[in-house]
Amino acid sequence: MADTSGGPVLRVAVAGASGYAGGEVLRLLLAHPEYRAGRLEIGALTGGSNAGTALGSLQPHLLPLADRILTETTPEILAGHDVVFLGLPHGQSAAIAQALPESTVIIDCGADFRLTDAAAWEKYYKSPHAGSWPYGLPELPGGRDRLRGATRIAVPGCYPTVASLALAPAVAAGIIEPTVHVVAVSGTSGAGRKPDVGLLASEVLGSARAYNIAGAHRHTPEIVQNLKAAATNSTENRDFDCAGADIAVSFTPVLAPMPRGILATCTAPVLVDAAQARAVYEKAYADEPFVHLLPEGQLPQTGSVLGSNAVTLQVAVDADAGLLVVIGAIDNLTKGTAGAAVQSMNLALGLDETAGLSTVGVAP
Amino acid sequence: MADTSGGPVLRVAVAGASGYAGGEVLRLLLAHPEYRAGRLEIGALTGGSNAGTALGSLQPHLLPLADRILTETTPEILAGHDVVFLGLPHGQSAAIAQALPESTVIIDCGADFRLTDAAAWEKYYKSPHAGSWPYGLPELPGGRDRLRGATRIAVPGCYPTVASLALAPAVAAGIIEPTVHVVAVSGTSGAGRKPDVGLLASEVLGSARAYNIAGAHRHTPEIVQNLKAAATNSTENRDFDCAGADIAVSFTPVLAPMPRGILATCTAPVLVDAAQARAVYEKAYADEPFVHLLPEGQLPQTGSVLGSNAVTLQVAVDADAGLLVVIGAIDNLTKGTAGAAVQSMNLALGLDETAGLSTVGVAP
Amino acid sequence: MADTSGGPVLRVAVAGASGYAGGEVLRLLLAHPEYRAGRLEIGALTGGSNAGTALGSLQPHLLPLADRILTETTPEILAGHDVVFLGLPHGQSAAIAQALPESTVIIDCGADFRLTDAAAWEKYYKSPHAGSWPYGLPELPGGRDRLRGATRIAVPGCYPTVASLALAPAVAAGIIEPTVHVVAVSGTSGAGRKPDVGLLASEVLGSARAYNIAGAHRHTPEIVQNLKAAATNSTENRDFDCAGADIAVSFTPVLAPMPRGILATCTAPVLVDAAQARAVYEKAYADEPFVHLLPEGQLPQTGSVLGSNAVTLQVAVDADAGLLVVIGAIDNLTKGTAGAAVQSMNLALGLDETAGLSTVGVAP
Amino acid sequence: MADTSGGPVLRVAVAGASGYAGGEVLRLLLAHPEYRAGRLEIGALTGGSNAGTALGSLQPHLLPLADRILTETTPEILAGHDVVFLGLPHGQSAAIAQALPESTVIIDCGADFRLTDAAAWEKYYKSPHAGSWPYGLPELPGGRDRLRGATRIAVPGCYPTVASLALAPAVAAGIIEPTVHVVAVSGTSGAGRKPDVGLLASEVLGSARAYNIAGAHRHTPEIVQNLKAAATNSTENRDFDCAGADIAVSFTPVLAPMPRGILATCTAPVLVDAAQARAVYEKAYADEPFVHLLPEGQLPQTGSVLGSNAVTLQVAVDADAGLLVVIGAIDNLTKGTAGAAVQSMNLALGLDETAGLSTVGVAP
Repeated sequence: MADTSGGPVLRVAVAGASGYAGGEVLRLLLAHPEYRAGRLEIGALTGGSNAGTALGSLQPHLLPLADRILTETTPEILAGHDVVFLGLPHGQSAAIAQALPESTVIIDCGADFRLTDAAAWEKYYKSPHAGSWPYGLPELPGGRDRLRGATRIAVPGCYPTVASLALAPAVAAGIIEPTVHVVAVSGTSGAGRKPDVGLLASEVLGSARAYNIAGAHRHTPEIVQNLKAAATNSTENRDFDCAGADIAVSFTPVLAPMPRGILATCTAPVLVDAAQARAVYEKAYADEPFVHLLPEGQLPQTGSVLGSNAVTLQVAVDADAGLLVVIGAIDNLTKGTAGAAVQSMNLALGLDETAGLSTVGVAP
Repeated sequence: MADTSGGPVLRVAVAGASGYAGGEVLRLLLAHPEYRAGRLEIGALTGGSNAGTALGSLQPHLLPLADRILTETTPEILAGHDVVFLGLPHGQSAAIAQALPESTVIIDCGADFRLTDAAAWEKYYKSPHAGSWPYGLPELPGGRDRLRGATRIAVPGCYPTVASLALAPAVAAGIIEPTVHVVAVSGTSGAGRKPDVGLLASEVLGSARAYNIAGAHRHTPEIVQNLKAAATNSTENRDFDCAGADIAVSFTPVLAPMPRGILATCTAPVLVDAAQARAVYEKAYADEPFVHLLPEGQLPQTGSVLGSNAVTLQVAVDADAGLLVVIGAIDNLTKGTAGAAVQSMNLALGLDETAGLSTVGVAP
Repeated sequence: MADTSGGPVLRVAVAGASGYAGGEVLRLLLAHPEYRAGRLEIGALTGGSNAGTALGSLQPHLLPLADRILTETTPEILAGHDVVFLGLPHGQSAAIAQALPESTVIIDCGADFRLTDAAAWEKYYKSPHAGSWPYGLPELPGGRDRLRGATRIAVPGCYPTVASLALAPAVAAGIIEPTVHVVAVSGTSGAGRKPDVGLLASEVLGSARAYNIAGAHRHTPEIVQNLKAAATNSTENRDFDCAGADIAVSFTPVLAPMPRGILATCTAPVLVDAAQARAVYEKAYADEPFVHLLPEGQLPQTGSVLGSNAVTLQVAVDADAGLLVVIGAIDNLTKGTAGAAVQSMNLALGLDETAGLSTVGVAP
Repeated sequence: MADTSGGPVLRVAVAGASGYAGGEVLRLLLAHPEYRAGRLEIGALTGGSNAGTALGSLQPHLLPLADRILTETTPEILAGHDVVFLGLPHGQSAAIAQALPESTVIIDCGADFRLTDAAAWEKYYKSPHAGSWPYGLPELPGGRDRLRGATRIAVPGCYPTVASLALAPAVAAGIIEPTVHVVAVSGTSGAGRKPDVGLLASEVLGSARAYNIAGAHRHTPEIVQNLKAAATNSTENRDFDCAGADIAVSFTPVLAPMPRGILATCTAPVLVDAAQARAVYEKAYADEPFVHLLPEGQLPQTGSVLGSNAVTLQVAVDADAGLLVVIGAIDNLTKGTAGAAVQSMNLALGLDETAGLSTVGVAP
């Protein structure tokens, strides 16, 4: 659209535009008020092995961009953009980032720069640690400050997003003992758009299965990192200090026959009663635009946040078992990936944090 | 949102806000630029047996309206609004319409005022004919003229929307013989939000079934009506005149295990070759903002139009069988219901026809 | 089929034949070798509000019984059968059982006689305790002895079946601390065939949601009961004695968009290493015909046990979190309900325990 | 199992045991009475690129065969078996068949030997015609005679199975004009177990799409062949002779988000009334064990035939449109592939045609 303001136009590139993360970034950008106002321009779209193909045949839901042709993913093509979103396989971001100017806002939807702990990275990713970038989860303590003006941003993993938001208030307030159990049911798009027999519809339809159990999933150390940060950064008076302690996270991902969504069940030994627990969450998220503590008794469901950037939570106490139970729902591609990326971009550029992002899901 | 323009604010009510049609109207209104600009206000939300309940427990995806309480559906409550959307069971619209001023824009998502032929109405709906209102399918010949400034609008049925848009150009151009076969695979939301055992997930998941076959479905006469109108209103030179003839429509709806979407397969004896057929459709929809003839070889899929107001079409000729084959996809709740309703509202009010409506689907 | 043996023919009735449990019992009986040999006859089929309806319109998958007409559910109609399966709403079994002879084998797929603890019953079911019957889970310690020759049998709940089989060996062997977390993802048929808006395909498709969290689900005390029994009945030398302790069970059920299947993730603090844990399970289930510990690294999936009576398990230790992780999969309607019922019938009647039951799933 | 009869044991091999067709053949063989009686032995299981892998990791639903190791697919390995099922990619069957003795019963689930018309083969498969074998659809006129004692059998395609059974009686009786429209909604397993991005769950879930439209699907000439044979072989007095005419078949396959099942909608201009049409079908299938004409008003659904060898049909006349409407449902992997293969084996070997095959589906 024509720029009607006369001001400078922001040029945005998406590397990996043929994947699910890249496609979702584009879906959100097409609805972004800056794009609608002609002040944000969608520039290069790159696609590795799909270079030369029209986007319309790869992402047929992005009709306004159907005629755009994917290019190769090179620093030369990405240069000359103000913002570059990366939706690439792990390990490819560092080289691209180094070749682009410091002033380019690079927002990496991949894992390369999420972990601060090199040992954790090497244990889980079996490769050298590239370093860490400001972490794109504004709702964590200190999150917004890290992101304002940042030019390198690591978008959180989808599971850590919901698990961290579900548990951080309890950790920060010290109302749980630091042994948390997370079982998260995910839609299939979290596994990416790779031709894997185990992800075929025939295999997935009508079936649920766990995978990467017993701490094997790469998102485990990221959850640990976030919860430790929540404890450390907290200024609350806590009955129980878990800042210095090792926070033990049991994480089990479960694949369910749905395309999107994560429903996380989080449990931990609790030190307070239900009303106190609820009060902690009400306070923590009172001013958050995207995190919604549902009314008592109403439970999150992934279908309600489809395509939205909302996180819905419910908090309860199982008095018999002595546990805090927190249920959280997100759309793994929106708040869990591309929504966080756009939210981070907004903060980095000084735009309204919520621009182009909705809390209205597409349901039923 | 606060009205920042100082102009008059449009007050909009939704009757039947707890159903799927009403919920989708609200989803679209929340994204409408007039709402965002504070010039459109969402007023009364009514819900029959759900009166007194918070919308958040019924439509949990509409987080910004979660605290709104549903009221009863009475003319008194609906009075005082500029626009009233009706998402009610068949037979309830006439009484409400009569009790509201002529100047109120009433947009009926139900069937009551769709059919012009009283005999067809009585045959299919087994009740007296209430009359007919301007038909909310702007893409049909003369459609926009009927809707501009209208204060009573009948939103088309979901199946007739896609079947009519898939076949009208061929009928208008006289390139087919007037015997058309439509088999349309639909998601479950088209059946509404009623507690019917046959619509339970347990019954639907993993299963496809036809229903109301052999002309029994109430949308059959609506498709006939639209195709006859397409023939009659056409100014094309046609090789074959089907305007005066009875157009025979074989319509078979099939329920598939998906929440949204209609994929219609339409076939009819063809009088031209593939290139000629394609040219007819290219011309018919060249300037339509929501109807997209896909590039040759690319086929419509409902997943690509989820939540969008787009209609995607592909046209082919089966030379061996001597048939035109048109495939069309829509979201039954958006373009098939609430999107058409909002598009019609825009035309009725003199707003940009596409305001608040997108051609970008939520995929995967 | 004609009885070719000349021996007595077993007459079997199914009360609640229009529901999912009753339908699955009939599916299994039709494949039972005694039925095929003409020595088991399917007698009365009762159906409450569906009395007078042909089974074919209610259970169209049971083609051989399509012409059978459902009757009302009365003791008179059920009398004269050797075996009576009950697939009735909670609270209806006691009256029927009292009216039938002691010698009639009554197998109750409902909850009425599962719990031995009257206080637990009253807390969770808000009604007087009717007593308890031999529990139809042969794989629990002492399970077979209770069932051989029994004439009253309580079929376990679907969740307790998989949770108990997943955890009982660890409890019996004392290799875990008695605080267990169970998050179980279930298909929709577990909720029964009732016209509930929340179970509509439109609501369930594409969405996962937790329900009855924080100990509110009625299957919670049943899991506790089974695990306590496993501890008490164990003759193992245990490092840790949990027999006398209160076993804390955190149970969270999650509804997923699939018609059948339960995938349970069970975690508990572990006292041994992975090899020792695996050895405990190998020993516990070495001779069980239906419980399969999968090879190391292979994870259970519900799709693989569809329609089968198999339970597939995997056991791992999360060394970082200090937890045992057990994943279990069943078909909730087969091993979780009707398969257990037929397995119990086989034991009660002195037939081959596995007769009519398969470990082969229908996949993909 | 041990052979208890003392008679010769039938040795059966399955080539392509890691695919969906091969897996379903094995599922059915495990339930076959000859296998249960120890008179049928499951010999070599071959798996191309999966040679050396345990079947349990590839087909986890076949627990009794979990430890079997797949071998390469060579004539040497397949030699020494009495029956060889082939579930191989197109083009591989001829070489294997030539290398095996004439007396070996070879049952090819692939397409290589289905078409009798070399020109049709070459047009659709772009390769030389290998010839044709007796066609494994016993329910077609003359079908059983062709199969009894046969040692080479071509299993029909899944779509032609249901389309042909839905239309053959009408063609044979001459009650329709020979222009038929078939729109068939299929589950994803019909596309095989190949890692194709378009078959990923993320792409398929929530979406329906047509493919290979306008006569492009390879099953089109097979439907034509079967309907021509039905006309030619018919001894009925027909009002309309379509034997010599070109039968025009419009075939549109539609992919739906379900793992199994085909729901075919078949329409054609009709020459008789509804009662006459129904009488034709009642007569045609009165004695067929697997083809069930449902009671009037009851419509087929694929969920009801899941895992069964049944074909359910409904016949109606759309009087307004002048059309016969036949709806048919099958399980594409059972009656559509492996069930037909086992049924054909039974006939070839002189066993009970229905042995090991059920008309009971797994539902819900």
